[in-house]
Amino acid sequence: MGKDRCLNITTLQAKDIRWPTSLGAHGSDAMHTDPDYSCVYVTIATAEGVTGYGMTFTLGRGTDIVLLAVRAMKRLVEGRTTTSIFERFGQFWRELTSDSQLRWIGPEKGVTHLAVAAIINALWDLWGRIRNVPVWQLLAEMEPEELVSTIDFRYIEDVITPEEAIALLRETKPTRSERIQYLLANGYPAYTTQIGWLGYSDETIRALCRKYLAAGFKAFKMKVGQDLQNDIKRCKLVREEIGWDNQFMIDANQTWNVQTAIEWVISLKDFKPLWIEEPTSPDDVLGQAKIAAALREHSIGVATGEMCCNRVMFKQFMQANALEFCQIDSARIGGVNEILSVYLMAKKLNVKVCPHAGGVGLCEMVQHLQMWDFCSVSCTMEGRMVEFVDQQHDQFVFPAAINEQACYVAPRAPGYSTELKQEAILQFEYPHGTEWKRMFDEGIFTRENY
Amino acid sequence: MGKDRCLNITTLQAKDIRWPTSLGAHGSDAMHTDPDYSCVYVTIATAEGVTGYGMTFTLGRGTDIVLLAVRAMKRLVEGRTTTSIFERFGQFWRELTSDSQLRWIGPEKGVTHLAVAAIINALWDLWGRIRNVPVWQLLAEMEPEELVSTIDFRYIEDVITPEEAIALLRETKPTRSERIQYLLANGYPAYTTQIGWLGYSDETIRALCRKYLAAGFKAFKMKVGQDLQNDIKRCKLVREEIGWDNQFMIDANQTWNVQTAIEWVISLKDFKPLWIEEPTSPDDVLGQAKIAAALREHSIGVATGEMCCNRVMFKQFMQANALEFCQIDSARIGGVNEILSVYLMAKKLNVKVCPHAGGVGLCEMVQHLQMWDFCSVSCTMEGRMVEFVDQQHDQFVFPAAINEQACYVAPRAPGYSTELKQEAILQFEYPHGTEWKRMFDEGIFTRENY
Repeated sequence: MGKDRCLNITTLQAKDIRWPTSLGAHGSDAMHTDPDYSCVYVTIATAEGVTGYGMTFTLGRGTDIVLLAVRAMKRLVEGRTTTSIFERFGQFWRELTSDSQLRWIGPEKGVTHLAVAAIINALWDLWGRIRNVPVWQLLAEMEPEELVSTIDFRYIEDVITPEEAIALLRETKPTRSERIQYLLANGYPAYTTQIGWLGYSDETIRALCRKYLAAGFKAFKMKVGQDLQNDIKRCKLVREEIGWDNQFMIDANQTWNVQTAIEWVISLKDFKPLWIEEPTSPDDVLGQAKIAAALREHSIGVATGEMCCNRVMFKQFMQANALEFCQIDSARIGGVNEILSVYLMAKKLNVKVCPHAGGVGLCEMVQHLQMWDFCSVSCTMEGRMVEFVDQQHDQFVFPAAINEQACYVAPRAPGYSTELKQEAILQFEYPHGTEWKRMFDEGIFTRENY
Repeated sequence: MGKDRCLNITTLQAKDIRWPTSLGAHGSDAMHTDPDYSCVYVTIATAEGVTGYGMTFTLGRGTDIVLLAVRAMKRLVEGRTTTSIFERFGQFWRELTSDSQLRWIGPEKGVTHLAVAAIINALWDLWGRIRNVPVWQLLAEMEPEELVSTIDFRYIEDVITPEEAIALLRETKPTRSERIQYLLANGYPAYTTQIGWLGYSDETIRALCRKYLAAGFKAFKMKVGQDLQNDIKRCKLVREEIGWDNQFMIDANQTWNVQTAIEWVISLKDFKPLWIEEPTSPDDVLGQAKIAAALREHSIGVATGEMCCNRVMFKQFMQANALEFCQIDSARIGGVNEILSVYLMAKKLNVKVCPHAGGVGLCEMVQHLQMWDFCSVSCTMEGRMVEFVDQQHDQFVFPAAINEQACYVAPRAPGYSTELKQEAILQFEYPHGTEWKRMFDEGIFTRENY
């Protein structure tokens, strides 16, 4: 601390940006049948000319609602200095999430928390740029005390205290630089979800399995949950293509009740899925604990997290033994600060973190978090991997990249990899971007749908 | 079913209405220090001239965000017939909460669920007006099958199925008319929170205790949680005024960690509070279960619910034995339909429902729900009461009213008691209402705060 330049934040701008992904059924699952991958894109400008970029992921309709929530929080950011934020970042995070009137419409969940994520992510991008390092390295090189000072421990001290977190990070410090070197040389293992969106035909699934096998992937995830017989057919098809040495995961996107989840997944047990993802409501800790207990004897784990709304919910999923794989999302809970606390709880309670990604910017962001985990927290890649979906990366200035071993390449550019190309904004800002104008004109979309 | 006139819904309008309650520190608590009691007010008009009014409660800033969410859902309501909604109301409720793009920014929580509540509440008001009965009576007189068809049982069937719910309602039917008569004659017991907002002075508290004692109240709730010594002083003061035969409850509004909650409340045990309300995060089922277990030996119950975001969370609080008093809120979870499911689960799991009220329109709405519970579900008032706060009632066409025994008087007017006076809208619509114009002009409020 004290080593950063102190910059004056002048403006926080937010934009609604949407890509028409529903046209190709990309991203379709049992609950989200026609997503248009979108984001609220936040730009935090300073008087000194350094700018931070952050985002939260959305599915089309409703992006304007999150945008309005970001704008309602502007006043808590504009006019501040970066030092006043970063020197007591945990406290600032609490201020942002605890506005005495706004918190009523959350608290710490849904629209307002997505808005917090976009702002907080932009601040981390800014911090990385100030220190001239990628965020994973910023995190990995921080002193334990400084890192822990960014976290609000309210409501999680029954699992981990600041003191324990500091001790935990100190313990891994002596060997950290070896892991940084390993990461720079090898990257971090990815898995693909690209093979099995519900909208895809059998032929498409086969072709995609082959494509991603050839690209070096060793783990493949498929959507399930609309029709059991069809799921059996598709699981069979995927196993035929990927064989039995590769990992296979299935994802139900919250479609089942507790009992249905247990029965349905047991019907698919011969395909040996590593995990079933989101078998039921993302809020049902106790229900999912029951599912996890029933599937444990079949060696099928339960994964959840992309819709887990905050650290308090993650805490309980871990306490209740309701998940084997914790799928943090970089844009649903309140940005980096809160996610750090989830990683620390996961370490304490022996849960593996395998981040959710795939939406716009999610791959770009989560790679940093998981690389920090490898350097500083769990210090292992065993049983861990990061989701990868090959969409919209070309829209970014510093896109996430996968090497020939299907590992995420450690980012080198300063910041959080969240900056969009200017052209992407001009084309896809909603509803006035050039591509949206064209699509409205050509009748591909009508505004009434929004 | 089939007996209702079928009306054509033409328009759904929504307004942002705010009252400057922060000027008097009314409603202030440990987390919400300066609330401006507000609402999103929904009007659903039909071609036939019958109109339904509904609302969701907010605290000022952020009301515009919920407003935008309501507008995003308009397209799911406008152009429908009332029959197409009411004949399969549970299915309609699911459609409203499951829009494939919008649900990402929820799901079923926060801003989007508050918006659902406003719309759903307006539909019940409309239904009551069509049948020409108050909503409590509409509910009480419905056939069990019809009532249960309004509920979406997704994610709660591990506690209660539609068949069980129907059986439960059938069982209470034979004696229902006696209870309706009792209710019409006596009303339903209320308690007051008006004595103990954190912003009030000792003198104000004493004066208010006397006032509400004189008004017939037998149960009194005070805010705690900012300062233990001050809490002890204020508890002592209230007990001096109300004596030991009356009930005394305390409310921490989520301010504590688990361990702090236990220690703090035990420090107040000599004042024999009936319950501690919201001791910790409203999302922390397991944490609150620990608190409830620790306080049980001191005969202090735990109450929560005003920020419980949906039926799945309520389900778990009850399953985990984490609350003795279930405080449903009429505007946070998705309106009447979802609340009915919480009452049915509470009956099944032997939990007492004592609704949260006090915000704009909350007293007006919850009285209907609790009266239905008395008629059709728990069939008892024992250990149950409804919060009452004496604010903004004069803004309503059919305000909630308390009789000389401090009981809510059973509403007689058709609908859900949610219609605001035209004058209230003209004065307090934000930011262009006449009162807001005046307050901005006089510098009492500045727009930059919003």
